[in-house]
Amino acid sequence: MLKRLFLNDRFILTLIIINVFFLFAEGYQDHNHGIWYLTFLDNLITILFIAEAGVKISTWGSKYYFKSKWNRFDFTLVLLSLPALITYLFKVESFDVSYLLVFRILRVFKSFRFFQFIPNVNTLMSDVKRAMKASVFVLLGFIIFIIVTGILSHYIFGPSGSDMFSSPMKSLYSTFKVFTIEGWFEIPEEIIEHYGAVESFFTYLYFIVIVLLGGILGLSLITSIFVDSMVS
Amino acid sequence: MLKRLFLNDRFILTLIIINVFFLFAEGYQDHNHGIWYLTFLDNLITILFIAEAGVKISTWGSKYYFKSKWNRFDFTLVLLSLPALITYLFKVESFDVSYLLVFRILRVFKSFRFFQFIPNVNTLMSDVKRAMKASVFVLLGFIIFIIVTGILSHYIFGPSGSDMFSSPMKSLYSTFKVFTIEGWFEIPEEIIEHYGAVESFFTYLYFIVIVLLGGILGLSLITSIFVDSMVS
Amino acid sequence: MLKRLFLNDRFILTLIIINVFFLFAEGYQDHNHGIWYLTFLDNLITILFIAEAGVKISTWGSKYYFKSKWNRFDFTLVLLSLPALITYLFKVESFDVSYLLVFRILRVFKSFRFFQFIPNVNTLMSDVKRAMKASVFVLLGFIIFIIVTGILSHYIFGPSGSDMFSSPMKSLYSTFKVFTIEGWFEIPEEIIEHYGAVESFFTYLYFIVIVLLGGILGLSLITSIFVDSMVS
Amino acid sequence: MLKRLFLNDRFILTLIIINVFFLFAEGYQDHNHGIWYLTFLDNLITILFIAEAGVKISTWGSKYYFKSKWNRFDFTLVLLSLPALITYLFKVESFDVSYLLVFRILRVFKSFRFFQFIPNVNTLMSDVKRAMKASVFVLLGFIIFIIVTGILSHYIFGPSGSDMFSSPMKSLYSTFKVFTIEGWFEIPEEIIEHYGAVESFFTYLYFIVIVLLGGILGLSLITSIFVDSMVS
Ligand code: NA
Ligand code: NA
Repeated sequence: MLKRLFLNDRFILTLIIINVFFLFAEGYQDHNHGIWYLTFLDNLITILFIAEAGVKISTWGSKYYFKSKWNRFDFTLVLLSLPALITYLFKVESFDVSYLLVFRILRVFKSFRFFQFIPNVNTLMSDVKRAMKASVFVLLGFIIFIIVTGILSHYIFGPSGSDMFSSPMKSLYSTFKVFTIEGWFEIPEEIIEHYGAVESFFTYLYFIVIVLLGGILGLSLITSIFVDSMVS
Repeated sequence: MLKRLFLNDRFILTLIIINVFFLFAEGYQDHNHGIWYLTFLDNLITILFIAEAGVKISTWGSKYYFKSKWNRFDFTLVLLSLPALITYLFKVESFDVSYLLVFRILRVFKSFRFFQFIPNVNTLMSDVKRAMKASVFVLLGFIIFIIVTGILSHYIFGPSGSDMFSSPMKSLYSTFKVFTIEGWFEIPEEIIEHYGAVESFFTYLYFIVIVLLGGILGLSLITSIFVDSMVS
Repeated sequence: MLKRLFLNDRFILTLIIINVFFLFAEGYQDHNHGIWYLTFLDNLITILFIAEAGVKISTWGSKYYFKSKWNRFDFTLVLLSLPALITYLFKVESFDVSYLLVFRILRVFKSFRFFQFIPNVNTLMSDVKRAMKASVFVLLGFIIFIIVTGILSHYIFGPSGSDMFSSPMKSLYSTFKVFTIEGWFEIPEEIIEHYGAVESFFTYLYFIVIVLLGGILGLSLITSIFVDSMVS
Repeated sequence: MLKRLFLNDRFILTLIIINVFFLFAEGYQDHNHGIWYLTFLDNLITILFIAEAGVKISTWGSKYYFKSKWNRFDFTLVLLSLPALITYLFKVESFDVSYLLVFRILRVFKSFRFFQFIPNVNTLMSDVKRAMKASVFVLLGFIIFIIVTGILSHYIFGPSGSDMFSSPMKSLYSTFKVFTIEGWFEIPEEIIEHYGAVESFFTYLYFIVIVLLGGILGLSLITSIFVDSMVS
């Protein structure tokens, strides 16, 4: 009877949604003066998810259970909630507080179980996968292009005095910012502060080219590859 | 004769457009020293719309009238103007002023009646509905993804000292901001203020991933689903 | 001989491009101490364009000349340069200086003659026209939707104390800003300053819905209509 | 034996990737107290790339080698690293430091050799080329449109007192900013500071039209041309 409940998708989905509400509500409680039943119910759901995995493995056999991509996904997410459950059950209080924080974070991940309950999720994912396969090398080429452009920008604008290109890592981040178009012009406008007219001109030109390559050409290319793989 | 006028779509559309102009002009008048004829004409149009509904129901029968989606839409919008009309006709002045403000707001909604006069609006709406149906679960999955990511972000960045993730609701809002790309980098740049190098690196990585998932993958996916359902 | 020159498209295109350079260079000269030959050459090109129109009309007949959409476009743009030419030729100095400024501005418009020299411009324009025709009512519906939403926003947020919604016109402008996504969140964040928690929540919700309708649904819809009319 | 190594694409790709890591790491060293082996290894890779070009030319013949677009690309990029290598090998220290900085920058360009190793890069490039060919005149028309609009904006808003339109070049830059939508409304909001109500209204209208033409129509058009050339 109870076994059939754990094999029922609607029951599991309900638990996941309730869990999201609990996690939301728990966010409003104080660290020290938490409302005891919220934490209790959150941990109860973890126990129910463990029971569900147990019932499914004993019913279907572990071989069949772990063959499914979604079951492996579920199992991993539930595992991440275990440390929080253990510290709760055994009232481990002597622990370092930063560990408890990490456990609280890990516990949230089990909410991502909702993904498999999106209708047609498998069709959708195979569509995205096909579009991704068609564009993986474009995306990869783009990423390497951003990395090399980031390094190049460091060597060009590093000596400008602006902090945005003072290290290769910062330069990479600033280059990515220009690619998202968001706040792009603030970057050359800060760099040219100590520059002459000619250097300023080429600095603007450099960033205008990156905006056009990233924001216009890049986005058009990725969208058209996606549309192409969806339509055909 | 008058009856035929109320059944004439052009007359109704003209009333709606005149009404938009009145509502625009009324916005410039003072609360206490309003120009009396603007308010008078605005309420007159409400009366004409009520008359229209009456004529249509008595001519076609209430069963036929309420079978049409657009008639039900019209009827609801006209109903929302009733409180403003009643307070005007019976000069209810003893009322709480905040009620009058709400009535003024509700009165504006009857302008949305213009929708049904967009040529081919039914074809267009069935196109959008088809595209929506094709993408409803993607959109739903996206919304749940934003909610869970928002809760997760609260547990991760809540202790950072930044107000943007101090409650689950604020965290949800900040996560949505990152998904629209608008001002995305201001969020990690504020969070890392009290962070070390390693934490800063992963904070940036976290938000770059959200930007890529939301702004690039998400937008490409939604656009391609829309195009797909329009082309085929 | 000279007549054939004016009928030669390459000669005209060269004049247009030279004219753009002159207009660019003239922008750097002082109002009072202008370089005399730049203004001289700019006016010379206006005279050459007038001569061109004269030659074309006398060769082809005014009926044939004005039948072409592009000739009518050319003629109008050249007409706009006439006031600047007349004040130059007759050294009208007693004139009001603000008139001279308007004449300088009008003179720039003849540069837009380059449009007709874009190869395949007629095919391109008929493509855009077809896409526009397919989307004209969506765009129109969108514009009316923005107008009504702008008026509605004025009645809702006008009493908030923020200047952004203090008049229907300002409210319309602020609503358009939200539709372009650019700086969208700065608007609710300013409004809620004197608001309580519940009002703040619905204010945020209101603008999130507008962002989704405008920036995501609107843009996807327009792009997919354009793609649809291009592909088929 | 060594010859076969230089003809092996995997070996060359490995060198390129290692080189990117070196360039990244070198960015963290001080100008004066650099880690000697990073610079040594960077120059060693340049030498290996020169050896690679030599081996390929001697094996395939210079005619065959230079017939390939990618080989010409490689050869040019390696040439750009030569000045840095020469100053390293001959310990040229008396040199002007700004030359050394330029040489350091040029050296980075050899990283762009990774492009040819993107799988299906030739198909992808011919797709992009086809899309570019289909849109080259639209793009060209767009660029001339931005230039003429920039000049026009200088003549209109130059006398406004705002620095953003004080010269044709600055005006061109500000116009481009409006086309990217990013920060578009800050421009009219700064200009109207000394304007009356009527001038302010038309200033806003002017920039709203540019935003619509650039950000909405322009982007939709370019995306749809790209998608069209990909799908068909
Ligand atoms: Na933006
Ligand atoms: Na912005």
